[in-house]
Amino acid sequence: MRFPIPSWVYDTVIYQIFPDRFFIGKGLTVEEKKQLYEKRGGRVEKWGVPPKRDEKNDHVRVFYGGDLWGIAEKIEYLRDLGVNAIYLTPIFLSNSNHKYDTIDYFKVDPQFGGIRALKRLINSLHAENMKLILDGVFNHVGRENVYFKKALKGKNKYRNMFIFYENNYRGWWGTKSLPELVLEEVSVKNYVIDVLIKYLELGIDGWRLDCGQDLGPEFNRYITSKVKEYSSEKYVISELWTYTGGWDMVDGIMNYHLRENIVSYIEGTNKNFGFYLERMYNETDNILACWNMLDSHDTERLATTINDKFLRKFAIFMQFTYPGVPVIYYGTEVGINGGPDPECRKTMIWNEEKWDNDLRDFYKKLIYLRKNEPALRYGSFELLNNDPIVFMRRTPMVLDTLIVYGNIYDEPLDITISIPEKRLLSGTEFIDMFTEDRYFIKGGMLKIKMLPHSFGILKVKNNIVNNYDQYKRIS
Amino acid sequence: MRFPIPSWVYDTVIYQIFPDRFFIGKGLTVEEKKQLYEKRGGRVEKWGVPPKRDEKNDHVRVFYGGDLWGIAEKIEYLRDLGVNAIYLTPIFLSNSNHKYDTIDYFKVDPQFGGIRALKRLINSLHAENMKLILDGVFNHVGRENVYFKKALKGKNKYRNMFIFYENNYRGWWGTKSLPELVLEEVSVKNYVIDVLIKYLELGIDGWRLDCGQDLGPEFNRYITSKVKEYSSEKYVISELWTYTGGWDMVDGIMNYHLRENIVSYIEGTNKNFGFYLERMYNETDNILACWNMLDSHDTERLATTINDKFLRKFAIFMQFTYPGVPVIYYGTEVGINGGPDPECRKTMIWNEEKWDNDLRDFYKKLIYLRKNEPALRYGSFELLNNDPIVFMRRTPMVLDTLIVYGNIYDEPLDITISIPEKRLLSGTEFIDMFTEDRYFIKGGMLKIKMLPHSFGILKVKNNIVNNYDQYKRIS
Repeated sequence: MRFPIPSWVYDTVIYQIFPDRFFIGKGLTVEEKKQLYEKRGGRVEKWGVPPKRDEKNDHVRVFYGGDLWGIAEKIEYLRDLGVNAIYLTPIFLSNSNHKYDTIDYFKVDPQFGGIRALKRLINSLHAENMKLILDGVFNHVGRENVYFKKALKGKNKYRNMFIFYENNYRGWWGTKSLPELVLEEVSVKNYVIDVLIKYLELGIDGWRLDCGQDLGPEFNRYITSKVKEYSSEKYVISELWTYTGGWDMVDGIMNYHLRENIVSYIEGTNKNFGFYLERMYNETDNILACWNMLDSHDTERLATTINDKFLRKFAIFMQFTYPGVPVIYYGTEVGINGGPDPECRKTMIWNEEKWDNDLRDFYKKLIYLRKNEPALRYGSFELLNNDPIVFMRRTPMVLDTLIVYGNIYDEPLDITISIPEKRLLSGTEFIDMFTEDRYFIKGGMLKIKMLPHSFGILKVKNNIVNNYDQYKRIS
Repeated sequence: MRFPIPSWVYDTVIYQIFPDRFFIGKGLTVEEKKQLYEKRGGRVEKWGVPPKRDEKNDHVRVFYGGDLWGIAEKIEYLRDLGVNAIYLTPIFLSNSNHKYDTIDYFKVDPQFGGIRALKRLINSLHAENMKLILDGVFNHVGRENVYFKKALKGKNKYRNMFIFYENNYRGWWGTKSLPELVLEEVSVKNYVIDVLIKYLELGIDGWRLDCGQDLGPEFNRYITSKVKEYSSEKYVISELWTYTGGWDMVDGIMNYHLRENIVSYIEGTNKNFGFYLERMYNETDNILACWNMLDSHDTERLATTINDKFLRKFAIFMQFTYPGVPVIYYGTEVGINGGPDPECRKTMIWNEEKWDNDLRDFYKKLIYLRKNEPALRYGSFELLNNDPIVFMRRTPMVLDTLIVYGNIYDEPLDITISIPEKRLLSGTEFIDMFTEDRYFIKGGMLKIKMLPHSFGILKVKNNIVNNYDQYKRIS
């Protein structure tokens, strides 16, 4: 028994944006918005200057000026790329650029354009049939949080929302800047639900929950139930860095497990890549709604993790062909690199001459394939070979079947695969959607010739001969 | 493995309309639209005159003038009732009033307002966040069908779409007026898909497939796959009068099996009512998207089947509390009666003084409950007692749990129920949403006092005492 998964999720590719770093709207520069940051203790930096870690953590107060107006102005870019949903890291009032230290959940930060810019963004996205997912940080708040400040002043009503020790209080990983909420308190639960519902009523399409491990299974379920009670078409994703199986009280989790599998396979230490993907699929009921991501604001950039272009493309290929919703971290599609936070939070490149267009076209092709192939959107996963990896994606419709393969090695590989699908009739042709090579299944087996450093998707082509259709009574 | 079920389906109550009989739009009377019918061999009848069976089947050419403009004008009535989707029996060009004998699938019948009225209806419905489901008749066409007429003239291209015998052809149940299509022919498959896609592109939200048994499992799957390939948010329902289990190549079927169960239980011959409902639930993977219906254009009216008001309400109560999507046949909510076709196809009553408002309010209450109770929308079903029937509906969130009961007998019944849900904590209060009686669960058991002729839904009420919440860590 699960909560319903919103059906639009199956048809979606998500684009993750760190709002300060994507685009400054209304033709402004960060200099022209300067007072918005300085009056709150921040400083501004020029678009394009790489962010650097500061020992005193002052890099979280460096601003580049991106805002929600800017995102709304760049919808055409997103439409052209092919993505149809945006996930924004937090946008609520906070003094930092990442805004994971919330001052007030009921206020959209004026640095990002405030509530007016959010409404505009929602309307602009919905007009293009795109969705918006916001980031909900409910394990902790910022030190400047309105309730926490009242608690510090000693008001019991607010003190009970936090845990105070002598001269201290409980913070996330002990950090003083992030006081943890007492999620078991009635007042805190109501606070969280009020926030969830306020923005659902404004029209957002889903919530990503920060620190899913800190929330724990019961509170993840609590939030999901409130969101689903509001509407079965709203989406809940939880940030979890664990194994995926069993987190089915939410619609899905951020599948970092897939990322680690891919990266370790590429570096040559993961000998069970296919087997692990198969087990993850079998044990994760909500795998189709989990997020397939190769980088994020919390990891180094994909181009830094995997510099080699073929191997990077192979990783992206896996991201789009394994069950789940692909999530592209802004700028990774044009080749932006960068180490761990804050280096992975560079500003978006808008000078097209600096784009890796080969890479961007590759993303566009995969997004197109996902949109047009039902088996990639909602098909099952069946492993056919561990290494080199070969697997099947299929829907209840036999002619939707796809065979996916990849050879990351320097040698060509010939491999014969048994395909466990009784309705795939002998002589059925498969076309490689990447190389256009043709294959024919015989006695339920398929011989694939893999070039060195190659990957592909074999798609059924039902050849009708003089109106004879061997699939006339099989669907 | 199933195709995705559109998530909006879980939040939906459907209203079935036979378009000729609902409302005449644009302030017209059927007299004023007379020529639209007479030039095609029909005759008109005044609104309110009960339709009667004619031995020569001429009753299918009697028209009352209802059209799609009229439906669009009555959206406020539907909104007030609370339904949020409409299923229309066929609307494509045809000489009959029921239009199951299609002349041309690419034309919306001018009697119903043509394509302009359909577009208007779609826009008006979507503006109210309501959905539209059309009726697709693909097993057969009408004798006047454009392709069938070409076939009769001997053109091979069209002859192959049908089966001709000496001096005859294959018709549905041998009927000459309904030539069957050869669904295995490439040209026929393409014809069907072209029709499906044309109206999806126009914006409709789903298809109901006529004669699902004649289409067979493979063709049902074929159609579903094409609809889902278009979008995971489109809905496919098949007309099947069989047991529900196993028809999971479509999103759901019309659950006449539920209707027969309820009716036979009420008449006293079905001694396994609860057990049968439990088995149906366990064996029907797509039960939540099946249609719970108590009457339709193909059965006598509910008020005729079950005249007794309490028993009729009990039947409707079951329709709304058993898993599935309730479908209300237009007018049944205000008490319209009528025997089998054509008597069940009376015109809608718009004189509010003739409405059964007690019944209509009862529907409104159940529709409201379904919208507000997640367990009714997407919860599981667990039988707690066969007769009198008691069952549980629950979601992954324990506080969503509902206990549903009904006593159709003349005596009061006290019954103690074991509730298999470990997270329902001792002392938890339940409130009867109909009687407001209070109950408390103890040691996992609940004692229910049922009055004679009663039914109810017990809902958890989590009592928080001085900020102590026993569900603080359980969701």
